[in-house]
Amino acid sequence: MKPVYRRALIVGAGDGLSASVARLFAKSGLKIGVAARNTDKLKALAAETGAAVHACDATRSDQVEALFAAMDGALGGSPDVVVYNASGRTRGPLIELEPAAVANTIAVSAYGGFLVAQAFAKRALPNRHGAILFTGASASVKGYPNSAPFAMGKFALRGLAQSLARELQPQGIHVAHFVIDGGIRNPGRTEPADAPDSLLDPDAIAESYLHVLQQDRSAWSWEIELRPWVERF
Amino acid sequence: MKPVYRRALIVGAGDGLSASVARLFAKSGLKIGVAARNTDKLKALAAETGAAVHACDATRSDQVEALFAAMDGALGGSPDVVVYNASGRTRGPLIELEPAAVANTIAVSAYGGFLVAQAFAKRALPNRHGAILFTGASASVKGYPNSAPFAMGKFALRGLAQSLARELQPQGIHVAHFVIDGGIRNPGRTEPADAPDSLLDPDAIAESYLHVLQQDRSAWSWEIELRPWVERF
Amino acid sequence: MKPVYRRALIVGAGDGLSASVARLFAKSGLKIGVAARNTDKLKALAAETGAAVHACDATRSDQVEALFAAMDGALGGSPDVVVYNASGRTRGPLIELEPAAVANTIAVSAYGGFLVAQAFAKRALPNRHGAILFTGASASVKGYPNSAPFAMGKFALRGLAQSLARELQPQGIHVAHFVIDGGIRNPGRTEPADAPDSLLDPDAIAESYLHVLQQDRSAWSWEIELRPWVERF
Amino acid sequence: MKPVYRRALIVGAGDGLSASVARLFAKSGLKIGVAARNTDKLKALAAETGAAVHACDATRSDQVEALFAAMDGALGGSPDVVVYNASGRTRGPLIELEPAAVANTIAVSAYGGFLVAQAFAKRALPNRHGAILFTGASASVKGYPNSAPFAMGKFALRGLAQSLARELQPQGIHVAHFVIDGGIRNPGRTEPADAPDSLLDPDAIAESYLHVLQQDRSAWSWEIELRPWVERF
Repeated sequence: MKPVYRRALIVGAGDGLSASVARLFAKSGLKIGVAARNTDKLKALAAETGAAVHACDATRSDQVEALFAAMDGALGGSPDVVVYNASGRTRGPLIELEPAAVANTIAVSAYGGFLVAQAFAKRALPNRHGAILFTGASASVKGYPNSAPFAMGKFALRGLAQSLARELQPQGIHVAHFVIDGGIRNPGRTEPADAPDSLLDPDAIAESYLHVLQQDRSAWSWEIELRPWVERF
Repeated sequence: MKPVYRRALIVGAGDGLSASVARLFAKSGLKIGVAARNTDKLKALAAETGAAVHACDATRSDQVEALFAAMDGALGGSPDVVVYNASGRTRGPLIELEPAAVANTIAVSAYGGFLVAQAFAKRALPNRHGAILFTGASASVKGYPNSAPFAMGKFALRGLAQSLARELQPQGIHVAHFVIDGGIRNPGRTEPADAPDSLLDPDAIAESYLHVLQQDRSAWSWEIELRPWVERF
Repeated sequence: MKPVYRRALIVGAGDGLSASVARLFAKSGLKIGVAARNTDKLKALAAETGAAVHACDATRSDQVEALFAAMDGALGGSPDVVVYNASGRTRGPLIELEPAAVANTIAVSAYGGFLVAQAFAKRALPNRHGAILFTGASASVKGYPNSAPFAMGKFALRGLAQSLARELQPQGIHVAHFVIDGGIRNPGRTEPADAPDSLLDPDAIAESYLHVLQQDRSAWSWEIELRPWVERF
Repeated sequence: MKPVYRRALIVGAGDGLSASVARLFAKSGLKIGVAARNTDKLKALAAETGAAVHACDATRSDQVEALFAAMDGALGGSPDVVVYNASGRTRGPLIELEPAAVANTIAVSAYGGFLVAQAFAKRALPNRHGAILFTGASASVKGYPNSAPFAMGKFALRGLAQSLARELQPQGIHVAHFVIDGGIRNPGRTEPADAPDSLLDPDAIAESYLHVLQQDRSAWSWEIELRPWVERF
């Protein structure tokens, strides 16, 4: 049996991967909601996709609750898909890191994912229907030097995703975690001439997100790795 | 850039997953070749999909060479996709295992995969274009008790797939490994009434194989896990 | 070359594993410091091992700094070994979890580990000498249902440990992460008569912690799994 | 409860790691047997440690049986520890590999490990006492380019070790797998002056092998990674 999804909420939306996901999901017939701390950058996307926009700090439980309440109305019903794309990043040698920045990186990368998943599940579990997609990174499965906070946040998000897959899938909620293993193409990054497609095209990533939504429940993916053909791994 | 594939060879073909893959690939426009030690069971599939059929013991290098030579003709050119589905299985407590049966399980599950990948790569590498798909199992990532031979074969196949992904992807050959984590539905297996879709539908698995072929080379998957929504893992 | 350690600080000390580690390290000649939020339970241990005791909430950076300052004096020099044993635990179905309790579990299990590692490294790096030992659990590598917060905390701690191993080991600081895969024996737990030694003896765990401290730097372990002989895994 | 071991057989013995293990085990009181295809190189070791020496091709079941029969006599009883150190290695781009060399690499690296473990278990299981130690490599957990055969062999050996740990440990046989992640020091290799101890000292590795034998059965390790402090991983 293939679930059919109708309304997708994308949290941590910006103009990169989230915009590509919003566009592709909209094109495939889903109503779209997008949320970010700063919604200024979402106006063009909203105009293009008809997405409902809502400002939200995903690390605040009250704001996450308010977001879902707003989306219930704006989308004509609760979202049955949620994508958690937010993440924080603090780099540097261990001894130079600011504790507050580290705490914030963990909160945005992982704790916000928990709050969003919980608010989503409260609405989706009674219907035994829904999908939660988490965006991970190389750092989800490998702790790099001078990058302890990002490793902490991304490992924690993966732990959340795996625990929820085991807990929620038998209740009808598909949970998937994407390991984006490489840099994502954006206007500020140039690919070397001799290595075309060496940055992940966000539209291409979005196709794998959509594929996961289209999987029959007898053959669900929990984790999908994506990387450029030329990426060392 | 999305590669476009034209001719797929499926090795270890039977009437389960391989048949589903053959049907779906044929439907999406690929010419199909199928190979197995015993080709009797492939007649209906060949009639349905127009597949070229060839008998082959994948653990014999001469037979694998002959298979590819035959397919070059039968498909009007070398296959640019190969799927390795063959596997052997010997169960039992360690001390009761027959050494010859263990050697055979490793040969069919892993060494044959090497021979097929090598013969394929000799043809595909000059074009810098192709895809190799390997079928794994729960035992690819977890060694179960009383199942040492299958663990050896499937771990080895995964090692092959990972090594080849690192070696061949930068040369244009996509390499993917599927972890099929659960039983595959077949006429001899009944699903419990209270757990519908608790066996993987081979047609559903085939859709993820096709999805991987359709990935843009900037966002290739190397490993994809698939399991039923109710599967413990 | 084998590092020689002199002063060990154990954070998150209680009367279980931490006490066993303290006793064994003391017996092998190290001076011992122990820290916990509540130091009442540490009195007997201090009397037995001569350990310096200090109250500390490891999730507060000011208290962690104060702890290390106090130990510099109490141990006659900065610790060159630190063991991070603290962890929080919140169980329950996702939708019943209290956000504040989840945040606290992550903070105690992982963020405190960062603060302690950072304070330690500030003192140890100039000497290019030291060891950081982190205590993990089954949940460090497997996310269980109804246990998302613990998975988040323990995955995050493992990400921290792996990142620090890559960053600090080439600077002379050994970093090790222990996956304690099973229940630890304590007075409140009874082993089944037909499964002796089915709970991990904390004294036995401590021996592997000590072994890691005794490793030559040409052959350091980063991760060590420990489980009872009869444990399913 | 700590098992006490009396007789250790080392298969695949040479003058590197195997010699270090033989020396340290002998020093700790075990009787030693060593086996290799070519026993010429074992004479000095035998003189030094009093080891019983036997020629054996570990990929031949009859020779493995004969080895154990010989050791039963030479050691005054069946070995209760076996170390499998043999491995083959074939390097090169996929398309240049010789099939026979690949088959041999898999046979020596993994199938021989199965034969040795089986012959050992037949003797050890009735006593519910024994230990099997497998030597892995970086390639046990990471498939490198241009090294498919070694990845196949070492992944397979790890699958064997994991399956046997789950099967045999509850029957009293400790099974451990060592991931030696780096080059091992030997007379032919020079360490850079600015990176002392950047190759694993085989005597240091041997200490971790001995430690595993000394573990209480309530806290057994299944897998131990060892790497030089400066190794990138």
